[in-house]
Amino acid sequence: MTFEPADPEFERRTRESFARQGAMALIGAELEKVAPGEVEIGLAFRRELSQQHGFFHAGILSTIADSAGGYAGFTLFPPEAGVLTVEFKLNLMAAADGERARAVGRVIRSGRTLTVCHIDVFVTKGARTTHCATGLQTLMSLVGRAGVKD
Amino acid sequence: MTFEPADPEFERRTRESFARQGAMALIGAELEKVAPGEVEIGLAFRRELSQQHGFFHAGILSTIADSAGGYAGFTLFPPEAGVLTVEFKLNLMAAADGERARAVGRVIRSGRTLTVCHIDVFVTKGARTTHCATGLQTLMSLVGRAGVKD
Amino acid sequence: MTFEPADPEFERRTRESFARQGAMALIGAELEKVAPGEVEIGLAFRRELSQQHGFFHAGILSTIADSAGGYAGFTLFPPEAGVLTVEFKLNLMAAADGERARAVGRVIRSGRTLTVCHIDVFVTKGARTTHCATGLQTLMSLVGRAGVKD
Amino acid sequence: MTFEPADPEFERRTRESFARQGAMALIGAELEKVAPGEVEIGLAFRRELSQQHGFFHAGILSTIADSAGGYAGFTLFPPEAGVLTVEFKLNLMAAADGERARAVGRVIRSGRTLTVCHIDVFVTKGARTTHCATGLQTLMSLVGRAGVKD
Repeated sequence: MTFEPADPEFERRTRESFARQGAMALIGAELEKVAPGEVEIGLAFRRELSQQHGFFHAGILSTIADSAGGYAGFTLFPPEAGVLTVEFKLNLMAAADGERARAVGRVIRSGRTLTVCHIDVFVTKGARTTHCATGLQTLMSLVGRAGVKD
Repeated sequence: MTFEPADPEFERRTRESFARQGAMALIGAELEKVAPGEVEIGLAFRRELSQQHGFFHAGILSTIADSAGGYAGFTLFPPEAGVLTVEFKLNLMAAADGERARAVGRVIRSGRTLTVCHIDVFVTKGARTTHCATGLQTLMSLVGRAGVKD
Repeated sequence: MTFEPADPEFERRTRESFARQGAMALIGAELEKVAPGEVEIGLAFRRELSQQHGFFHAGILSTIADSAGGYAGFTLFPPEAGVLTVEFKLNLMAAADGERARAVGRVIRSGRTLTVCHIDVFVTKGARTTHCATGLQTLMSLVGRAGVKD
Repeated sequence: MTFEPADPEFERRTRESFARQGAMALIGAELEKVAPGEVEIGLAFRRELSQQHGFFHAGILSTIADSAGGYAGFTLFPPEAGVLTVEFKLNLMAAADGERARAVGRVIRSGRTLTVCHIDVFVTKGARTTHCATGLQTLMSLVGRAGVKD
């Protein structure tokens, strides 16, 4: 799918918003790709990101997946609009055992009010990359309201 | 719903597993309640846990919600079983604007292989508590396999 | 939770809309309860509603669950607004083996644009009622647009 | 993704099981494609399948989507195994206004116990086909148990 961004400054706007997410800095997430309707976020494994078996915590993966999807939608929004997650669902398909995770958000439906994204997480261990999680996310575009749903 | 734990040592076992989740320590989450089929996790707000508008990041809320539900299921498992999240879905219903979040996981279906939980997140700001997120989670009980789905 | 309907004619309006759903007549669904923010739909088992093992088909259960949730939201809408399902998720927790199913939709978040409902399905066999499915649904209120998302 | 079916008779077995689903006959659904890990089901519009605006009812679409995904998983199961839906989630992205719907189920993770599928629904009106719904489904393989979850 190809999307035309409403705002030519979409990449700068997306990077600025990402930089304001304290949670991304805390976990060490990096914005790796910003394209119209598609965003990727990378994350190196550290013991601080683990669940009880020493793999990436499902919640940490959902944190980068939620941001990847949210910013994928955000790239297509008009300059004055904010983004909020309405809901998301994630299937954890394989143990997230590896050195690095990558979350990919891709818009599949872009509407004036609601946007739908596919969100996927891949984990790399040595030479092998595993598709660890796949999900769906619904976003809302908020014009002129500071991050509050209506 | 009332559940009979299969293991009388369920609380100790749950607290030990929680202590091994690096992600809980990183974000500052605290295990506030461990009862058969019900677990609560608390989290104080810090700038490091925010999204771009300064509220709790949806992914951080889903991290404590996923752990609350996972451990709610875990309390009912036999001693030798591990827990993995198969999938979860979360609806973000209100801006997570407050000083403290509390995730509640409650088992609604406890099976030999699969367990289903309600997961909810409440955020408190001053005297007001808001039900910010509600969701569902499917868990898998893993006997004799170190955290790997089959 | 208690809700104040925006339209005192909510029950008449809900019953009229239900009567226009061809799918409800086809499967034999009956509107059993219409209260502010809560709707119940009943369905007698017939071989025509089955999956391959002779139980209620998960899709048929999701059909009455989707309508129960949709109309639960609809009871709270202003007179001129239509309702559309944005998304829903259903966990099938037990075999839907019985003579009668009942879907219950309850609003848990009522907003100007978006509404969130719990949707549940119970199946009765003889004297025993089983909680077969539980889910979440997001609805959209549509003012002045004939059933088309935006 | 390419899958190797465990049972060379997968197509016959799938068609026989589909023929036992009373719900598919009731709504008029047709099994259009049976390949390893991928199944398509078609459905002609009739007034009896509608919601209140005269489009396909979301529940009817979810019924063919659930069967398409369930049988996509089933094609990869061993001969003696049955299939049950653990849960599914569907995003309704556009009004399902058209003469014919087609549900596509594709396996993305095939495990011994659990299988994950993408489920999608397309609706055709005249020359135009719209991607109306996208979702995820978790299936369970049941060996030697007649359709009852454990």
